[in-house]
Amino acid sequence: MALIVQKYGGTSVGNPERIKNVAARVAQYRSRGDQVVVVVSAMSGVTDHLIKLAREIMPLPNEREMDVLLATGELQTIALTAIALHALNVPAVSLTGAQAGIVTDGVHTKAKIHNITPRKVHELLNQGNVVIVAGFQGETPEGQVTTLGRGGSDLTAIALAAALKADLCQIYTDVDGVYTADPRLVPQAKKLAEISYDEMLELASLGAKVMQSRSVEFAKKFGVVFEVRSSLNDNPGTLVKEETKSMEEVVVRGVALDKNQAKITLVGVPDKPGVAARIFKALGDSTVNVDMIVQNISHGAGSPQTDISFTTEKADLLKACKVIEKLRQEIGIRDVITDEKIGKLSIVGVGMKSHTGVAGKMFSVLARDGINIGMISTSEIKISVTIDLARGEAATRAVHEAFIG
Amino acid sequence: MALIVQKYGGTSVGNPERIKNVAARVAQYRSRGDQVVVVVSAMSGVTDHLIKLAREIMPLPNEREMDVLLATGELQTIALTAIALHALNVPAVSLTGAQAGIVTDGVHTKAKIHNITPRKVHELLNQGNVVIVAGFQGETPEGQVTTLGRGGSDLTAIALAAALKADLCQIYTDVDGVYTADPRLVPQAKKLAEISYDEMLELASLGAKVMQSRSVEFAKKFGVVFEVRSSLNDNPGTLVKEETKSMEEVVVRGVALDKNQAKITLVGVPDKPGVAARIFKALGDSTVNVDMIVQNISHGAGSPQTDISFTTEKADLLKACKVIEKLRQEIGIRDVITDEKIGKLSIVGVGMKSHTGVAGKMFSVLARDGINIGMISTSEIKISVTIDLARGEAATRAVHEAFIG
Repeated sequence: MALIVQKYGGTSVGNPERIKNVAARVAQYRSRGDQVVVVVSAMSGVTDHLIKLAREIMPLPNEREMDVLLATGELQTIALTAIALHALNVPAVSLTGAQAGIVTDGVHTKAKIHNITPRKVHELLNQGNVVIVAGFQGETPEGQVTTLGRGGSDLTAIALAAALKADLCQIYTDVDGVYTADPRLVPQAKKLAEISYDEMLELASLGAKVMQSRSVEFAKKFGVVFEVRSSLNDNPGTLVKEETKSMEEVVVRGVALDKNQAKITLVGVPDKPGVAARIFKALGDSTVNVDMIVQNISHGAGSPQTDISFTTEKADLLKACKVIEKLRQEIGIRDVITDEKIGKLSIVGVGMKSHTGVAGKMFSVLARDGINIGMISTSEIKISVTIDLARGEAATRAVHEAFIG
Repeated sequence: MALIVQKYGGTSVGNPERIKNVAARVAQYRSRGDQVVVVVSAMSGVTDHLIKLAREIMPLPNEREMDVLLATGELQTIALTAIALHALNVPAVSLTGAQAGIVTDGVHTKAKIHNITPRKVHELLNQGNVVIVAGFQGETPEGQVTTLGRGGSDLTAIALAAALKADLCQIYTDVDGVYTADPRLVPQAKKLAEISYDEMLELASLGAKVMQSRSVEFAKKFGVVFEVRSSLNDNPGTLVKEETKSMEEVVVRGVALDKNQAKITLVGVPDKPGVAARIFKALGDSTVNVDMIVQNISHGAGSPQTDISFTTEKADLLKACKVIEKLRQEIGIRDVITDEKIGKLSIVGVGMKSHTGVAGKMFSVLARDGINIGMISTSEIKISVTIDLARGEAATRAVHEAFIG
C-alpha cells in the first residue's frame, strides 16, 4: 500500500465529464489499496473569468481581495471532485488549503508556504477516505486566505507530498511527460523515463515549460520524487528525482530552443571597475530580467574600452533600452546595438560534469551546418549559445540528432 | 453615527455594474458618518450554475460537499464588493461567514446559527472599514463550512445586526417594501411604512413572500428592527418591528391571496378519539405540509361520523392522496374529495385583537359579490377563507377596498 499525491490541472478538471474521468483514475489507484490525496486546480477558464469580473470593477484590485476571489475556483473543484468519487462509491472528503494545514506568509497573490501540518489529511486517510485538497491556496497564521501565484497547485502537491512523506507525487497535465526536445520541433524527440531536478530546472528556465521552477526547486529541497504524466492516457510519464550515477551516463538529457530572447550590445564601454555593476544594477532596479551576459576583452591602451552583450526577454527589450539610454552619456557608451532575431539553443545534462568535449561537439555540429554562434554561456550541466533565429529550428534538430539520435 | 447592517440579494449584485451601484450606496451611508456592515448573496445565477454542475456529476450530491461548493458564490461577491468600494476610495475588508464569527450546527445545506462572535467585525469597523460579510454561510465549531438554506443571507444580516447591536438592518431587494396587497393584483395597494413581526410572519406564510419566515422569527426573537427596501431607488421601504399601540389602530394591515393551495375532504370519518391524530401524523411523517384544517360537527347516533377538510400545497396533493388511500380501509373513510380550484384569501392585522366585527365585515363583502366561502380559519391577527379560485382576484380587490381603500 502506497501513499500517493496526485495533482490535476485546470484542463483535466475543465468540466463535469473530465472531473468524472479524474475520479475514475483515482478510484483505480484506490482499488489497488493505495491511499490517495488529490490536489486540484480551478476548472479551466474559471480563474480568468473571475479576474475579468474584478478588473471590470477596478483595473488594479486589492491583492487580499483577489486572493479571496480566486481561491473560490479551487474550492468549487474540490467539492465537485469529491462528489464524482461518491458517485463511484468511493468515500472522499474535500479540504480547503487551510483545512489541509497549509500555512503561508501574508504576501497576497504570491504567498510562500511556511509550513504544513497535515493532521486532518492523515486522519481522513486513515478513516479510508480519498482526500481532495484545493491547490494554489493557503492561509496565514491569522486566518487570511492567500494564493501561491503561478504554478501554485503543483507547489501544493509537492509540498503536501513532502509533509505527508508520500511514496509518490504525480503531476497530471496535458503532456505525456518531459521530452528530449519539443516534439513539434524535433519529431525524433523521445519521452524521458527520468530526469534529475537540476536538469528539469535548467529545462524549465530554458522555456521548456512543463512546470514552474519553484515547484521543482521545492521538490529538490525536500527530496520529493514526482512524476509528470498525462491525464488523457495511462502511459507512464517522466520521473523527476535526485540524480543517480546512471543518469551521468547520459551526456545530454535534452535540447531546448528559446525564441523569446533579444540581444543588446553596448559598444565601447569604459573598462574600469564598477561600470558593469552600475549597468546591471540599473537594469535589475527596473525589473529587466537579464539572462546571458558576455564581456569581451578590452582594447585601447590609455583608456581601455570593452563591449558588453546581454540577452533579455523580447518583452523587456524596450524597457532595457530606456534604462541604457539614461546611462549612456553618464557612463560614456559609444554605441548600442539591439538584435531581436536571435534564438537561444541549449543542451542540458548532468553527464556533462563527467564528460569532456561536449561543447566542442556542439560547436562542430553547428559549424558543419554553417550556423554562426553569437554568445556562449555555460554552467556545470548546460551549454547555451545564441544563433540566428531563422536557423534555430534546424540547429535544434541537428544538435538533437548528434547527441540524442 | 449609526451602525447599519445592509443586505443585498443576488439580483442587486448580479454583475460588476450592479456591484458598483451597491458600493455607491454604501459609500453614501458611510460619508454620513455611519458604520456599515454589508451582507451579500451570490451573484444571481451563480448558485444555480453550481448546482447544475454538481447534478451533472451525481443526482443527489453529498450535502457537506454541496456546502463547500455553494459557499463559493458568496465568497466571490464579498471580494468583488470590497474591490468596488476600494474603487471609490472607501476602505473595505471582506469576511467569510466563519471569519465574521458565525458558528452554526452541522446540519449541512440547512444549518442553524448557534452563536455569533463578531469580534473581527467590530475590530475592522473601528479601524474605519466597511465590512463585507458573506451571507448564507457559517462554520461548525469543528471548522466545516455550512450553508443556511433558502433565505440564508437575510438570516445572516438579521443575526449579525442582533450580535452587533446595530441601529438598523436594511434588507435590499427588488421590491420597494411590503404592500397592503400584491400590486399586480390590486392596483390600489399601498406600500406600508411599518408592519409588526407577527403581521409580516402571517403575510410571509400566506404567500406574500418578501422574506422567509425564519428570518422574521429570528428578528422578532432578538428584537431586530429591519427595513425592507429596494436597491434600485432611494425610496424609503417598510420597517418591520415589534407592534406598537398605534399599529393597533389599523385593523387590516394587508390582504393576501394564495393560489397554490388544494383542498382534500374526507367524507364520513368515524368520530372517535385518535382518528384525526392518526391521519395528520401519517401526513406529517410523509412531509406533507398541512395548512388549514376544518372538522364539522358529527352526525349519526350509534357510530357518529364527521367530515374533515384540510388544505395543502398543490405540489403535495398527490403525496397526500397516497397517504390517505393507505389509511382509508383501516380507518373507514367513506369518500375522499379533492379540489385544486381553490384560493386562500386572508386578511392580516394586529388591530383585529382590539376590533370586533372584522370577520363579519369580510364575509359580508364576499357575500355581496356572490362569492361562496369554503373553509374558514382564524388566528388572533388573521382571518383566512377558501374561495373559488376563479373569483380569487376579484375577491382580493373587493376585500382590499373594503378594509384599506
